[in-house]
Amino acid sequence: MIKPRTPPGVMELLPRDQIAFQRMLDTIRHAFEQFGFLPVETPVMELTDVLLTKSGGETERQVYFLQSTGALEKSGEGLPELALRFDLTVPLARYVAEHEHELAFPFRRYQMQRVYRGERAQRGRFREFYQCDIDVIGKDALSPRFDAEVPAVIAAVFERLAIGEFTIQLNHRKLLRGYFEGLGIEGDAQMLVLRELDKLDKRGADAVRATLAGDGFGLAPDVIDKLMAFSQVRSTGHADALAKLDALGAGTALLEEGRDELRAILNQLKALGVNEARYALNLSIARGLDYYTGVVYETTLNAYPQIGSICSGGRYENLAGHYTRSKLPGVGISIGLTRLFFQLKDAGLVATADSSVDVLVALMDEAGLEHALALSQRLRAAGLNVETQLEPRKLAKQLQYADKTGIRFVVMRGEDEAARKVVTVKDLRRGEQFEVTEAELAAALLVEREQLRSAAGNA
Amino acid sequence: MIKPRTPPGVMELLPRDQIAFQRMLDTIRHAFEQFGFLPVETPVMELTDVLLTKSGGETERQVYFLQSTGALEKSGEGLPELALRFDLTVPLARYVAEHEHELAFPFRRYQMQRVYRGERAQRGRFREFYQCDIDVIGKDALSPRFDAEVPAVIAAVFERLAIGEFTIQLNHRKLLRGYFEGLGIEGDAQMLVLRELDKLDKRGADAVRATLAGDGFGLAPDVIDKLMAFSQVRSTGHADALAKLDALGAGTALLEEGRDELRAILNQLKALGVNEARYALNLSIARGLDYYTGVVYETTLNAYPQIGSICSGGRYENLAGHYTRSKLPGVGISIGLTRLFFQLKDAGLVATADSSVDVLVALMDEAGLEHALALSQRLRAAGLNVETQLEPRKLAKQLQYADKTGIRFVVMRGEDEAARKVVTVKDLRRGEQFEVTEAELAAALLVEREQLRSAAGNA
Repeated sequence: MIKPRTPPGVMELLPRDQIAFQRMLDTIRHAFEQFGFLPVETPVMELTDVLLTKSGGETERQVYFLQSTGALEKSGEGLPELALRFDLTVPLARYVAEHEHELAFPFRRYQMQRVYRGERAQRGRFREFYQCDIDVIGKDALSPRFDAEVPAVIAAVFERLAIGEFTIQLNHRKLLRGYFEGLGIEGDAQMLVLRELDKLDKRGADAVRATLAGDGFGLAPDVIDKLMAFSQVRSTGHADALAKLDALGAGTALLEEGRDELRAILNQLKALGVNEARYALNLSIARGLDYYTGVVYETTLNAYPQIGSICSGGRYENLAGHYTRSKLPGVGISIGLTRLFFQLKDAGLVATADSSVDVLVALMDEAGLEHALALSQRLRAAGLNVETQLEPRKLAKQLQYADKTGIRFVVMRGEDEAARKVVTVKDLRRGEQFEVTEAELAAALLVEREQLRSAAGNA
Repeated sequence: MIKPRTPPGVMELLPRDQIAFQRMLDTIRHAFEQFGFLPVETPVMELTDVLLTKSGGETERQVYFLQSTGALEKSGEGLPELALRFDLTVPLARYVAEHEHELAFPFRRYQMQRVYRGERAQRGRFREFYQCDIDVIGKDALSPRFDAEVPAVIAAVFERLAIGEFTIQLNHRKLLRGYFEGLGIEGDAQMLVLRELDKLDKRGADAVRATLAGDGFGLAPDVIDKLMAFSQVRSTGHADALAKLDALGAGTALLEEGRDELRAILNQLKALGVNEARYALNLSIARGLDYYTGVVYETTLNAYPQIGSICSGGRYENLAGHYTRSKLPGVGISIGLTRLFFQLKDAGLVATADSSVDVLVALMDEAGLEHALALSQRLRAAGLNVETQLEPRKLAKQLQYADKTGIRFVVMRGEDEAARKVVTVKDLRRGEQFEVTEAELAAALLVEREQLRSAAGNA
């Protein structure tokens, strides 16, 4: 038993403090954006020669160097005290076990942070990537009803991300194991057969059939037929999913248990009003075989099956057996956002975003500075993100700059406009310009921005 | 010259892609919160024995171990290839130098991420902490007008954070150096004298005076008088700041340059409408002596001077001399949010937050499940964060749970309410309850939530 604890010198907050912290971060970010600053995030690690360009400073003596396992094994020394997390599940287990008596169960948590893998870098594989995880953790027990809530969240996420039609695919480890037992396949053999069936897409039916009939497995042709048919079950729509479950026929007690739970999940998804095109049975999915014990989920983009699962997870028996004797069953799901983003960009499904800056307040001449500053502040107070042109430049250059950086509106005020207390707004998105009084400017820009957002279907 | 580059296997985005990525993260977080999941963030590093409870797995072979410089020097081997960043400035320098030809200048960036320091852990000192930085980087030159925009952002941030009255303190390295030159103190001696003056609060005037008159410095009493008077200049209000600058008398060309720039900054802050109680001259502040070359900023909480500066920065000559021959002057400021949050908690200035969950939809009996699920989804669609009670429990337990976790509203629907198509809402914050029709429920809760937010003065 390992005592769950954090290293000294880190701040880790319980949920209500974390919310306060997050609100502060949000407030700061919002203000920064209102002033036209652009977001950047850099990897947590830098090449040592890039990072350590000077020597002898205080902080240069406080760098944490990273070593991958391979390098350490060669050096023959023991493991260093600290290491970077490689997923968000181990930290969750440690966190829940450490704070067991301070948390309210069932504990619904989300975590959206970067994780680290010291693997060989190649295109589309990342050493550092975001995971966005949700899990519900129960104490001693966790109602199977959470198994339906989790995919309802995922459906809401992907509806709002608007990256195309998707399907949350459902299977159940008990249904799977029960069905295999009914065919006389027990224990470790189940895992090995599953692995072969999982290769159906890659190897083709004939090759898999040959392997299952061969020396290692020695399965009879009719058993192989049943296995292949089972693993190819896919449903389309709610009623079809229920019908396909019925069509499996009577089975072992374990199969019945899994089937009942899947039926309950399907009915609960319907009660939650989740679009029935968004979920389906897929009896071929299994996921981490020694980890998941109940429902398992995978999510695919209908038009891009080659991307594979963009959000996977399932139900597990016990989260933190390494850290506590308490039984902590859970259900959860993870989105690998860095990889997903990379693939969506690759497939042209993520357009380059407009700037977070809504408005450039142009500056025509020195005399206009004070007015430009005050006008910018009024637009910010109305909720717009505004950049001020601080030094006069040719108007064409200012418009070019706005265009290049994706700023939609340029607000201009020459002598003529000043005399009439109006400004001219150039809308670079629509390629139009219009005149508006200064008093009505903020409202006009907010309306335009809102219209575009509604048109784009974003929240 | 070191080639600025990232390690292979990390994703680093240019601003417009980063915005798209951030929007996805926000969308996901919002959806998770609407379903009642709570935020958690764990430190990027875990104790090795906590992290590596099993062995032989794929990811267990891909861990990045960290070694502090001390341990490495003992082992006698070379530095590892990768290390964790210790601030956001070195990564910014590398980033701007690497993407010099893809960025639009002046480049306003914000970055809010964790940095790492391998220092000995002690109370209030962190090995991992958030920095929230803004910088504006120019190519070849950067208008001094940005020097006033930066404190205007900081004023907006701390106004909105609502953690009490604060003062952004301003000084200027040219004014400082010019004044010292006028007293015959040149070169390295300036730095040493400044360090002594900086100890005024800790050591007291007599001790500092003795040191400055002693062997190392040998300054005349009237020079020491002038230095002490200079370093004690503080202004209150806009006119006083300008007057105190005038009162310094005629000085060297360098002093005049610094004074002119400070005057321009003060006038620009006024034009931006920044409350004049929020900024002041403080001619004792100097900050990183070999780094900042123009204006310098520190920010203090008026009621908590012992916390020290909560946001510091200034103008620097050249950001990325180690990575590029281009001259990249900049001005920026940094908030050490982890340390600040810790100190605010310590001083009782951050209250434990309410839950991010607005509403618990209670469940009185099995028959109510479907209705509870559908009602929860309707409240979510209206923009509320909702948790559904999925298994019936004694109502007292459900209320207790909401109270413990900081959920404000509990929506209850017994047989009597169901018959009348109403629900009862228990408002745990106000200790009241009220009845409302189901059709009007979402609007009623949104109004209540909005009223409370306005009352709290939050954005």
